[in-house]
Amino acid sequence: MMRQAGRYLPEYRAVRAKSDFLTMVRTPELAAEVTIQPVDIVGVDAAIIFSDILVVPDAMGMHLVMEESKGPRFPVPLRTREQIDALPVPDPMKHLKYVMQAIEETQRRLQGRVPLIGFSGSPWTLAAYMVEGSGTKDFRHIKRMMLDEPDTLKALLKKLAVAVREYLEAQIAAGANAVQIFDTWGGILTPDHYRMFSLDYIAHIVATLRNDGVPVIVFSKGAHHALKELADIGADVIGLDWTVDLHDVRNLIGEKVALQGNFDPSFLYASPERIRGEVMSLLQKYGRGSGHVFNLGHGILPDVQVDNARAFVRAVKEKSPVYHA
Amino acid sequence: MMRQAGRYLPEYRAVRAKSDFLTMVRTPELAAEVTIQPVDIVGVDAAIIFSDILVVPDAMGMHLVMEESKGPRFPVPLRTREQIDALPVPDPMKHLKYVMQAIEETQRRLQGRVPLIGFSGSPWTLAAYMVEGSGTKDFRHIKRMMLDEPDTLKALLKKLAVAVREYLEAQIAAGANAVQIFDTWGGILTPDHYRMFSLDYIAHIVATLRNDGVPVIVFSKGAHHALKELADIGADVIGLDWTVDLHDVRNLIGEKVALQGNFDPSFLYASPERIRGEVMSLLQKYGRGSGHVFNLGHGILPDVQVDNARAFVRAVKEKSPVYHA
Repeated sequence: MMRQAGRYLPEYRAVRAKSDFLTMVRTPELAAEVTIQPVDIVGVDAAIIFSDILVVPDAMGMHLVMEESKGPRFPVPLRTREQIDALPVPDPMKHLKYVMQAIEETQRRLQGRVPLIGFSGSPWTLAAYMVEGSGTKDFRHIKRMMLDEPDTLKALLKKLAVAVREYLEAQIAAGANAVQIFDTWGGILTPDHYRMFSLDYIAHIVATLRNDGVPVIVFSKGAHHALKELADIGADVIGLDWTVDLHDVRNLIGEKVALQGNFDPSFLYASPERIRGEVMSLLQKYGRGSGHVFNLGHGILPDVQVDNARAFVRAVKEKSPVYHA
Repeated sequence: MMRQAGRYLPEYRAVRAKSDFLTMVRTPELAAEVTIQPVDIVGVDAAIIFSDILVVPDAMGMHLVMEESKGPRFPVPLRTREQIDALPVPDPMKHLKYVMQAIEETQRRLQGRVPLIGFSGSPWTLAAYMVEGSGTKDFRHIKRMMLDEPDTLKALLKKLAVAVREYLEAQIAAGANAVQIFDTWGGILTPDHYRMFSLDYIAHIVATLRNDGVPVIVFSKGAHHALKELADIGADVIGLDWTVDLHDVRNLIGEKVALQGNFDPSFLYASPERIRGEVMSLLQKYGRGSGHVFNLGHGILPDVQVDNARAFVRAVKEKSPVYHA
């Protein structure tokens, strides 16, 4: 369900009541516990390691701050070439060891029941947070840098591409059974700038990643204009938000890659009966074949009823086998 | 520039310092004053009446509240069929008379210098605010209503389609030289739901509007998947955000309608030189022909430097004539 461990689960809130978010991320036992919760409670057939994309900038020395209800923040945003040149590429086994330990601990507890998915933010998306210093609606600073100092931004993206590749390789070595690159903010760019400042770096990571056969999923939210190119970079799976038509996308890019997602996350606010109906519509839209990984088109939303999440998973499990025949 | 009167202008802030936002909207002299400011200060070649899309639900008795830095709010959101059935369709000449007076006052002051554009929100976008009760990220209530009680939502959309048509006709009668339908939230829907719950009602308005030759602009932000259909509903101009390629869109829908927008609003945070460069790129992308109304792909952002807005307008005026030859 993407970011499937979360506040909608009472069992998650019980863990969260005792530890702050970053402590949970940094404590392998806690991260493993909440990673497995959706598998046990909702019945999803893959676990997603509980973490945050911003652990990478944090490991580069940017000191991630998570304030209650205010979202993530970096006290000193990156605004100059000097700051960017001074940033180290982190050694994942040193600075992000807690993620690898969480993966190992989760695999020990899962005992092979379901596969475990690791992930990283894309260079562009990480850069957006690092340059803005927090969440934003207008992306003022990074867009200014992109236009006025493209080489400065490219220096940052290049460094992040190395960091992301090494981070994903470490997750694979620790036992991740698939890895996903999340490009949350790719869709705020014009098609040309998306290619230059987001897609190129994702493509470079996928091309150079030593993934040892572990499937690579790429999800660039809002990149409706680049799906054909995304299908050509060598990833195994392309993630889709819910603003594209699954039938049209399948026709467009054929069977070259698997397609993941496309179910509007806010549908989980509807009744279990309607959720079931929408699941059936989407199954029909893809049609026969095993190339669709049924998934939400973005993370599960807060305040979703657990019963609704369960109805969603149950409907997919019940209704999809006929399409795989 | 879309919503071009605003906080980035010191002259606007001077008016705003003495009156709250809704007083400005409801006082024809103040509305006319800030409507004309961008024409005089920035040099845009059309004025856009200073108003807000939420005056329509307000005129339907929903009591719009604008709280400083909190955004618009309706104290009693629409959640039931009974509430929706009880909503009156407003008489624009009675409940929105101040808008018509602002249009008349603006035309008196403009003396034909530039045309004046009127506007309304689309039924779907107005409904989203009315059902949610405020701005939202997840659109929980309206999506629940859309799936669980589609007939309830359709009753609201039908009523709003009548209200919007009559409101636009009144604006045209008062002297608007073009009218725009703003569908800010069309892009949060799946393609199928967009057609059923947004496009159909916009199309109905355009088909039934007595516009007496006044051009009709339709802007459905994020509806990248429906541009071909949008071009077929009878509007004169289709607005584009910046996530589509202008060259591709022109190829797709030909010369059937004019295309408006497509310039990323955050580019105005860059230097005047880069703004100029991006203007030239976009002119080149459309190529020769008079079918592109150069415009931002959404409203001007806060904190844009006035000099940058001016550089943007100047570049368009200087560089575009060669493409119209």
